[in-house]
Amino acid sequence: MQDRYFSSDPAQRSAARVLYRSIKDLPLICPHGHVDPQLFADPDYQFGSPVDLLIIPDHYIFRMLYSQGFSLDELGIAPLQAGAETPDHRVIWQRVCDNWHLFRATPTGIWLRDELADVFGIELKLNSANATAIYDAIASKLESPEFRPRALFERFNIEVLATTDAATDTLEQHQAIRDSAWGGRIIPTFRPDAVVNLDRPGWRDNIDRLSDVSGLTVGDYRSYIQALEQRRSFFQSLGATATDHAALTAWTEWLSQTEADAIFQRALRGEATAKEAARFTGHMLIEMARMSSEDGLVMQLHIGSWRNHNPQLYRRYGRDMGADIPIRGEFTKNLKALLDRFGNRRDMTLVLFNLDETTYSRELAPLAGHYPILRLGPPWWFFDSWLGMTRFLDAVVETAGIYNLAGFNDDTRAYPSIPARHDVWRRVCADWLAGQLVRGFIDEEDAYEMIRALAYDLAKQTYRLEG
Amino acid sequence: MQDRYFSSDPAQRSAARVLYRSIKDLPLICPHGHVDPQLFADPDYQFGSPVDLLIIPDHYIFRMLYSQGFSLDELGIAPLQAGAETPDHRVIWQRVCDNWHLFRATPTGIWLRDELADVFGIELKLNSANATAIYDAIASKLESPEFRPRALFERFNIEVLATTDAATDTLEQHQAIRDSAWGGRIIPTFRPDAVVNLDRPGWRDNIDRLSDVSGLTVGDYRSYIQALEQRRSFFQSLGATATDHAALTAWTEWLSQTEADAIFQRALRGEATAKEAARFTGHMLIEMARMSSEDGLVMQLHIGSWRNHNPQLYRRYGRDMGADIPIRGEFTKNLKALLDRFGNRRDMTLVLFNLDETTYSRELAPLAGHYPILRLGPPWWFFDSWLGMTRFLDAVVETAGIYNLAGFNDDTRAYPSIPARHDVWRRVCADWLAGQLVRGFIDEEDAYEMIRALAYDLAKQTYRLEG
Amino acid sequence: MQDRYFSSDPAQRSAARVLYRSIKDLPLICPHGHVDPQLFADPDYQFGSPVDLLIIPDHYIFRMLYSQGFSLDELGIAPLQAGAETPDHRVIWQRVCDNWHLFRATPTGIWLRDELADVFGIELKLNSANATAIYDAIASKLESPEFRPRALFERFNIEVLATTDAATDTLEQHQAIRDSAWGGRIIPTFRPDAVVNLDRPGWRDNIDRLSDVSGLTVGDYRSYIQALEQRRSFFQSLGATATDHAALTAWTEWLSQTEADAIFQRALRGEATAKEAARFTGHMLIEMARMSSEDGLVMQLHIGSWRNHNPQLYRRYGRDMGADIPIRGEFTKNLKALLDRFGNRRDMTLVLFNLDETTYSRELAPLAGHYPILRLGPPWWFFDSWLGMTRFLDAVVETAGIYNLAGFNDDTRAYPSIPARHDVWRRVCADWLAGQLVRGFIDEEDAYEMIRALAYDLAKQTYRLEG
Repeated sequence: MQDRYFSSDPAQRSAARVLYRSIKDLPLICPHGHVDPQLFADPDYQFGSPVDLLIIPDHYIFRMLYSQGFSLDELGIAPLQAGAETPDHRVIWQRVCDNWHLFRATPTGIWLRDELADVFGIELKLNSANATAIYDAIASKLESPEFRPRALFERFNIEVLATTDAATDTLEQHQAIRDSAWGGRIIPTFRPDAVVNLDRPGWRDNIDRLSDVSGLTVGDYRSYIQALEQRRSFFQSLGATATDHAALTAWTEWLSQTEADAIFQRALRGEATAKEAARFTGHMLIEMARMSSEDGLVMQLHIGSWRNHNPQLYRRYGRDMGADIPIRGEFTKNLKALLDRFGNRRDMTLVLFNLDETTYSRELAPLAGHYPILRLGPPWWFFDSWLGMTRFLDAVVETAGIYNLAGFNDDTRAYPSIPARHDVWRRVCADWLAGQLVRGFIDEEDAYEMIRALAYDLAKQTYRLEG
Repeated sequence: MQDRYFSSDPAQRSAARVLYRSIKDLPLICPHGHVDPQLFADPDYQFGSPVDLLIIPDHYIFRMLYSQGFSLDELGIAPLQAGAETPDHRVIWQRVCDNWHLFRATPTGIWLRDELADVFGIELKLNSANATAIYDAIASKLESPEFRPRALFERFNIEVLATTDAATDTLEQHQAIRDSAWGGRIIPTFRPDAVVNLDRPGWRDNIDRLSDVSGLTVGDYRSYIQALEQRRSFFQSLGATATDHAALTAWTEWLSQTEADAIFQRALRGEATAKEAARFTGHMLIEMARMSSEDGLVMQLHIGSWRNHNPQLYRRYGRDMGADIPIRGEFTKNLKALLDRFGNRRDMTLVLFNLDETTYSRELAPLAGHYPILRLGPPWWFFDSWLGMTRFLDAVVETAGIYNLAGFNDDTRAYPSIPARHDVWRRVCADWLAGQLVRGFIDEEDAYEMIRALAYDLAKQTYRLEG
Repeated sequence: MQDRYFSSDPAQRSAARVLYRSIKDLPLICPHGHVDPQLFADPDYQFGSPVDLLIIPDHYIFRMLYSQGFSLDELGIAPLQAGAETPDHRVIWQRVCDNWHLFRATPTGIWLRDELADVFGIELKLNSANATAIYDAIASKLESPEFRPRALFERFNIEVLATTDAATDTLEQHQAIRDSAWGGRIIPTFRPDAVVNLDRPGWRDNIDRLSDVSGLTVGDYRSYIQALEQRRSFFQSLGATATDHAALTAWTEWLSQTEADAIFQRALRGEATAKEAARFTGHMLIEMARMSSEDGLVMQLHIGSWRNHNPQLYRRYGRDMGADIPIRGEFTKNLKALLDRFGNRRDMTLVLFNLDETTYSRELAPLAGHYPILRLGPPWWFFDSWLGMTRFLDAVVETAGIYNLAGFNDDTRAYPSIPARHDVWRRVCADWLAGQLVRGFIDEEDAYEMIRALAYDLAKQTYRLEG
């Protein structure tokens, strides 16, 4: 349906259509996501079965089925402890199709529908009867050279795609991509959470690994900072333009170097408290802002997800099992210590994301409409949807304008869903601007420039991807 | 107006109309409400005057008049202390009609308008001039046998209606209904707040009453739990399929049996603190979940209402005087102790209600879209309205889908308003789905199945009313 | 565009149009704002350059340019410390026009567009090329007698305009307006924040000034209260009908006179803590409610703005530099102490404003739909916008009705933007009511009476401006 997702009001719909047409063929800018760089390092990478591609890695899909009584084992998720039998992928696929009604009116359902149609040429709606035939059709496509990741990259018209990589990652796959003859632009993003959040399982091992990869002995706060700076520089040498930081809250607090070192030393001895870990994270966000003010990496901050909320699932399957639940967000107080130090800089950018929509109009838009360093990331996770995006634009644009936004991120692990996700954003923006246009808030010149900014320019500029 | 409450966009309106038509004649499922079972126990029950029926029991109506300067005495509410003169009901009715403009664009106004038209055949809009004539018309209807509760039950096409009953209720009226030849299905709901919330006025007396009705001597935590289990079983024997719990917050916390008993003993001696009362309530919610996991009663939790916020009114008139004011809600942290123990059960259901709309998209939908036990109750109280329902659907469906919802509850004391309340829900759902349909998020097959689920199936399934 | 800001749905649009027409020529009631009374005291007052009029005093405009990298110096804002060179006003104007795209889809952009068109007759959209010509056109108009404030007052059809004045203000300008032959109704508003909030910079000096202007020696809590009562009486003698109070939160708490005096004495000695200051403010809100219950001044309360969030800017330029950022609001708990004492009074009015939209449906509407003293102020500051107003009406009317609202305040420093601001409100209300009408929630009689109430009557009644 060419006009899908647009208002049914004829005036708004026709305005949305022409705005959308003006930008629908622009390349995709993918400055933040979780695609594995291995897909591009290996020119012959294959995705495996349809279930390997579409179900097992996608917690959006299996969480919904879990909520309705399926076990994750039944959906092909491997427990951490070996020994469980994996169901046949055709059986899993049948289960998904038998319950496809659960995804009605959800973005997960929309994306898969659009992806099947636009990437795989499958226009049928999934159901019990056609499950096998569709499985076979997808499987057959996946075997063809046109469905190698590099081929899809070109077909998807992706201009640049950033992955998200641990601070200790040696980026061999990124190096391999660079060394290959292939021209696709894949860049890493520096994500140091595992060495910054002291209470993260494995933190101590990650510090050792940080010593290894940096060639520095990370034994105190000073060497720790040096190692992080060195890693950032290494990431930049492989094309990184940004960092990414996750925290439960946006709490920031500047510790003296003495105090930071004392907490760091206690953490090395396994003695840091939860409170100290939270303070250290809050301090490190400011250190990272300081580094960004020096090396120019765009800083991203994602807050508000209570990870692994379901301990039974976490013990059996590990992280990212669809059990991350949002909590309230707060920025006005929490981010103040960082903003006091760096908020007025014109040479750096901090992009904010969170899962509490109440912060949009109350805090984020007023902050972004004032502080030069701030840009607002697109609606994140559960809000990467028609209504989520519409509420976001409704809540922030009047106060912050669109030029304090960071455009769109697909933020996905599900590589072939990238075009569908960008398409939803572009359609929602076209429809939203059409609404502004038919009501006379903006004129046509405004609308055309704004749709282009939202669809393409803002992401490219914010993440310094012009180079 | 046959298309009332639908979008004025012609495409959406016509889609809404056909969806609505497909379900408008389905029976009403009323799994949660506050209708007095006495209405059905007595085959000749009469409602009294129009003011007895429509004004005095309806705090939605008199709170609004109170906010504009009327005293509750002037509206016929009897003070706790005898002696006040009650105004003539015709005078009260005239006051309401003189001020009917206060209810413009409110659900209270909509419901009464629809109820007068559809139940009483009165199409006129209330005003000062027609007050007396309409009073007389209603009074005359109320005298006829067609306006006995049982006759209305059949006319309203109610399939099942659950009342809400104290844990200590002996359910004689329910027994009488069962013993009568009448076939209407009226079932009780187990609501133990008055024996669970230690700081509830009269708690100590209620415990004595619990001993009486259970035949157990409730003198410690162990016998208390036994008595509650016994009562639940008794409620089930009279058809109950659900329990209901009210708390200020969703705080849950598992206490050791020793600690629970210590607090219980202090409460028996009148020595429990407010903090202990809150912890005990939080613990008992988990105990109740445990019981539900065993006896299969569907658990409902209503949080977030600061009851009796106005002490002057409370002293003079008692509870339920329109002075219950919402506070912020939180589930992600507060409900975790309960979910850690029972969240993954597939054999029980917990239906959540609250009065803070910010929790919808931030917490409730992600929780319900993951934990098997959770279902989301319909928008409660102030949000039982066109915009309240629309915001609810907008906020939760993209994340939780519709199959993690509990359908509709009318939750009313005002028996003859039941059809009007269900009709608003059905119309809003039809319109909302029509909006999804004309924008291409769902197709016709989806829309028809979804409207039926929202209007009928989900309530019946969630509350285990198939039997 | 005559139908600007109305829905593009033909049915809703035509209904909005006729509703709007029915009230668009009603006089403007301006019961709360920040226009300088000097504009009216001096019959020959001139506004200075276009930049003096439109840019320098308007933090809505310069904050957005600041967020995109301009310094305030570059925009003509004078630092507190003398010596900085002010850019030529034509250069500043060019900068604003070069970056006018930043204001797309913002109320700031809408207001200036409407103001230029309707007040200055300039229909062109600002851009780099026409900046100079438009500057000249505005400058030329500003020299003419038709652009003196008094002339504009009449042209704007303002019925009454309230300024906002410190408790220690001697109101000479108000006296001069009264003494002049001019008939415009300009009244003061009593705003005692600077003598109430103990931690406000300059509080001690303001107390001395309070002694001076009251003729009382303010040396203890008792004389302090007397002085405030005396000042209120003085303001009333010059036409004031209202007071205004700003606080970070709505916290209220009744202190004993002994405790209040002890804190006051410590504050006089410069020894009050931040906690004591907060408690004292909370107590004084109740004292002010008590005074309002006696003298009849309507009380306004604005909460939730973290003033001067950016310390660098505050040090260099002072207050009101676009760096006031909202925080979460709460009323149910915080306002209870005040409501316990005065909430049931029928002879006084408290108008509430805040910057956290989540309070609208959760707390404000239920409170206003119950307590006789409460009225809800219009959406404030960032929410004085199409979507802000629409969300406000959506969130509060179903629960509180419209008769517990206070109509509209323009709340502006930017005098010539007043008609544009009222026009947006009137258009939004017309469109919102049209939406209610075409969906059948209200009928035409309702709609016409409601639009008049929202556009004119409610503000006049709430602020007791009939006299």
